[in-house]
Amino acid sequence: MATTQASAQRVTAENGIEYAYRDFGESEVPLVLLQHFRGNLDNWDPALIDALAAERRVVTFDNVGVGATSGKTPSTIEAMAHDAIAFLDAMGFERIDLLGFSIGSFVAQEIALIRPDALRRVVLASSAPQGAPGMHGWAPEVIAAVGGREPNPQGYLEVFFAHTETSRAAGQEAAGRIFVRSTDRDEPTSWQTRQAQYDAICAWGIPNHALLERVTGIQLPVFVANGDSDPMILPRYSHLLAGLLPDARLKIYPDSAHGFLFQHHGEFAADVHAFLEEPGAEA
Amino acid sequence: MATTQASAQRVTAENGIEYAYRDFGESEVPLVLLQHFRGNLDNWDPALIDALAAERRVVTFDNVGVGATSGKTPSTIEAMAHDAIAFLDAMGFERIDLLGFSIGSFVAQEIALIRPDALRRVVLASSAPQGAPGMHGWAPEVIAAVGGREPNPQGYLEVFFAHTETSRAAGQEAAGRIFVRSTDRDEPTSWQTRQAQYDAICAWGIPNHALLERVTGIQLPVFVANGDSDPMILPRYSHLLAGLLPDARLKIYPDSAHGFLFQHHGEFAADVHAFLEEPGAEA
Repeated sequence: MATTQASAQRVTAENGIEYAYRDFGESEVPLVLLQHFRGNLDNWDPALIDALAAERRVVTFDNVGVGATSGKTPSTIEAMAHDAIAFLDAMGFERIDLLGFSIGSFVAQEIALIRPDALRRVVLASSAPQGAPGMHGWAPEVIAAVGGREPNPQGYLEVFFAHTETSRAAGQEAAGRIFVRSTDRDEPTSWQTRQAQYDAICAWGIPNHALLERVTGIQLPVFVANGDSDPMILPRYSHLLAGLLPDARLKIYPDSAHGFLFQHHGEFAADVHAFLEEPGAEA
Repeated sequence: MATTQASAQRVTAENGIEYAYRDFGESEVPLVLLQHFRGNLDNWDPALIDALAAERRVVTFDNVGVGATSGKTPSTIEAMAHDAIAFLDAMGFERIDLLGFSIGSFVAQEIALIRPDALRRVVLASSAPQGAPGMHGWAPEVIAAVGGREPNPQGYLEVFFAHTETSRAAGQEAAGRIFVRSTDRDEPTSWQTRQAQYDAICAWGIPNHALLERVTGIQLPVFVANGDSDPMILPRYSHLLAGLLPDARLKIYPDSAHGFLFQHHGEFAADVHAFLEEPGAEA
């Protein structure tokens, strides 16, 4: 049975929220994943989860108000970070590796600033620092593609994959893997979640050069990664993050976009494993 | 005859300074080069100049007080930029491409801010934005290697080339090419130049996050490049520049250090040509 067939589990935290999560693989330090805009447990590409869980414990979860987790999605990254920390505490995790993707990478930065000693190493995929000029809101074609009331598979492909034959084909394959699950599917994300997450993303993107300095407070080793053609969060923001963070590695994956980590799931998982096992990385 | 056998020429500018320069190749828009710390005309690797001049006009010059150029080297990047602009005006250049290396890349940024319409495209090699935290002064081993009173070929190799067999071998070859010239050598750079340039570099590195915003005013296309193991100006500052500049491309060259452009002269020259000839690059 593929690790991705794991059933969703439930844990109730001190904030009274019942969190839905899935738990795969084994390792001393778990790798916890923070999901993209409007994504739930099902939206993690099973090929990526399998490749990560082959070498370590991987935990995916719905943050407050998302999918099957109870409560109402808050509209700030800071509140989402506190909600995620409540989940980590409920799970009894003392120290984790954290991988945040898209809005999840904003939450990951915030956790690294609020609760640094809960983290060992951090992966920021398709990310940007708060206040970076030029990213406020999203380009109209991006929000049109992924922000509508109804699911838009074509729009998903346009934003998550590059406009090349190879990347589009990879996108069709990833979408096939994501939607093949027929049992124990997660709850769809609500319109309330969409609106609250969009508010939080827009607030994160209000231009403010002074806020760029915040991430210089993250002393942890960080792996920054993006696709070279991401239209949603441009690769220049990964450059910026890697330049601001005191201890970052940077990789830009070719012929790919926002969903580069699904398209290049084998290579990305190998890069994540290598980063998490770098000489000097303590357990 | 290799283009690098070209004799030094002289031009006197409105500031009364007599500039020494060398002029190679042919193209409508010349590519002007700004040299590294303590470097004079001879310190450009002939292999790089030949590869650049094969496809365009390339002009190297000694800025004020450096090598055979008259005057006293000023101790701020801003003054060096004005001195370089005086040279461009004396040459009758209306619009150039500009390649700055190390301290020359700081001067290039300043020229792009002071006199943007004199420039078409900019290459920043082994560079950093003013105010970037963590680069103030240089690591003691770096300044010990390249900052002494007497020439230190071993120190040069340690800073300009990576500590691998392949990079060291490339460094020996580059040094051989640089020091093979027997006639019409430039004047050595003086201790006054060394002190003034070091003051300017230290002032550039005074940590000041607010100053990072300056380069967002450079609207020109920029190619940012560095070696992956540069100990003098870390690659993270190239990431930072590429993230801050509105229109940048970034390349980090493997197995190389501060002198990556000498080591990888063929690849780098090809990348520079491709950048300068990108679709949309007007003449």
